[in-house]
Amino acid sequence: MTDTNDPLVDAQALAEASANALWSRDRATQGLGMTIDRIAPGQALMSMPVRPDMLNGHDTCHGGFMFLLADSAFAFACNSYNRNTVASACHIDFLAPARLGDVLEAEAIERSRSGRTGVYDITVRVRGGKTVALFRDKSYRIEVQVIAVQGLSPAHREPAQERP
Amino acid sequence: MTDTNDPLVDAQALAEASANALWSRDRATQGLGMTIDRIAPGQALMSMPVRPDMLNGHDTCHGGFMFLLADSAFAFACNSYNRNTVASACHIDFLAPARLGDVLEAEAIERSRSGRTGVYDITVRVRGGKTVALFRDKSYRIEVQVIAVQGLSPAHREPAQERP
Amino acid sequence: MTDTNDPLVDAQALAEASANALWSRDRATQGLGMTIDRIAPGQALMSMPVRPDMLNGHDTCHGGFMFLLADSAFAFACNSYNRNTVASACHIDFLAPARLGDVLEAEAIERSRSGRTGVYDITVRVRGGKTVALFRDKSYRIEVQVIAVQGLSPAHREPAQERP
Amino acid sequence: MTDTNDPLVDAQALAEASANALWSRDRATQGLGMTIDRIAPGQALMSMPVRPDMLNGHDTCHGGFMFLLADSAFAFACNSYNRNTVASACHIDFLAPARLGDVLEAEAIERSRSGRTGVYDITVRVRGGKTVALFRDKSYRIEVQVIAVQGLSPAHREPAQERP
Repeated sequence: MTDTNDPLVDAQALAEASANALWSRDRATQGLGMTIDRIAPGQALMSMPVRPDMLNGHDTCHGGFMFLLADSAFAFACNSYNRNTVASACHIDFLAPARLGDVLEAEAIERSRSGRTGVYDITVRVRGGKTVALFRDKSYRIEVQVIAVQGLSPAHREPAQERP
Repeated sequence: MTDTNDPLVDAQALAEASANALWSRDRATQGLGMTIDRIAPGQALMSMPVRPDMLNGHDTCHGGFMFLLADSAFAFACNSYNRNTVASACHIDFLAPARLGDVLEAEAIERSRSGRTGVYDITVRVRGGKTVALFRDKSYRIEVQVIAVQGLSPAHREPAQERP
Repeated sequence: MTDTNDPLVDAQALAEASANALWSRDRATQGLGMTIDRIAPGQALMSMPVRPDMLNGHDTCHGGFMFLLADSAFAFACNSYNRNTVASACHIDFLAPARLGDVLEAEAIERSRSGRTGVYDITVRVRGGKTVALFRDKSYRIEVQVIAVQGLSPAHREPAQERP
Repeated sequence: MTDTNDPLVDAQALAEASANALWSRDRATQGLGMTIDRIAPGQALMSMPVRPDMLNGHDTCHGGFMFLLADSAFAFACNSYNRNTVASACHIDFLAPARLGDVLEAEAIERSRSGRTGVYDITVRVRGGKTVALFRDKSYRIEVQVIAVQGLSPAHREPAQERP
């Protein structure tokens, strides 16, 4: 956190602090070689190289690892407001295969956020190449903070809201 | 394969042989502790215990591991006709969390198959308990056999078809 | 409503009364020639003949009219507990075309219901023929009754619940 | 069509000619008060006022009419290359209700196109207001032209392709 009262600075600092807290707790993805390339309120860009142990019986990257990468980008984007948020639904279109040695990039962007739910688009590309999968995820906010923040500006103390 | 000409026996034997061939090649899922509990033409039941390394930052089973299990059940179901088949789309509703020690079961059932595409429903449950996720996957058949089969009955030599 | 205290009879009577109330208010679908063939708690079967004004530029039934029929079956199924419920998401796979003179049937079945949300599968078939579309709809309950019911058994006075 | 050989001009002229041909044949949507506000290769913007006969039992615009508008924008976008193309799947998130007198706008944008399939995002907004629904549609090209075009530049005589 910063000592300024600029809400934009605060929002970016909060997004980064939430990402750090979430990352440190996530045993499932730490071993997969992912990196966080960019984080912002409602947005995240992550990357992951395709390793030999990620190949399926067709010798292409198993869809489950594309899912894990996209899901992580989604999680960092929708938890960037320091409100614990989970996926309630996910729709995926697989467009092309990825191969050993490709570096996959997943970019998550918020399309809508209202009450407790949001919609995020996550585009998975081969770095420097084609789009391999499109994800659209629905988020649902549960009533717990990602990090306990003291001295947080009132704007972040959003009251619990019902879906409209 | 069997030496009988009963098409039902043949179809079941082919489903089992395809499952064995696919399993032996799938480096991505072999380490996850999955078992194949039942296989039949267009159907599969798989299970997997939730391990500590499958937990996410909310201390529940990461959705990516539910995806990996459901995707495997889907793959065994839609490859059971010995035609290489991949997922072209996937829709998921996450209903409830799964926890450490739960045994997850994924049951894949064919809802439709026509030309090169099919639709499969995969229900993921905690063994002896509640349903935790519903998957609906779309399959697309590529023109390669899972296993090279000699003496296969003509019914299995389905000609390449266009989608209607 | 009935004068019995049998909860199953009550549930069926409530489903029928909710369907009647919803139907009488729905200006959008009354002109489309739909009939309610069966109604039960969490289930509905509706039918609709394909008319000339439902054909699209490909001379097959416009997907929008399949949607209207499936959506009505969904609405009767998920409003059958006398709690106003709307669709929050819908996933459709179109499998085959329907033609002029076909009678379409949409059968809605509840797959999951918990807190304020539910998941329903709606299968659209040509009567006596093939399946033409598969819908999976997510419901969200808003806090209003479909019909004001006096003397309703306490089981129906479900308290407002949060999503888990 | 124009007498120039500029492929961009040709592509735009082809998009407009395809839209006109499709519109003239579409009995289902002509009576709904839609207008085509913009058309371009892979894109379309359409609008439609919410009328009293489009209201459902909750007194808001029936989702089926949002579907019809979004589906039309999708159809004009994906048929803009003069290849008959239909929806094979559709995923919808309903975000907010629309009311009597609102003018709905649906903007369709191509996200991916490869072989016979494509993915399109269609955003439905109240004019001058909020987003009410997000659609993601999958297209499948059938082997017929929307309009018979003479003297069409070779670039438009795309050979039939398989999905990769």
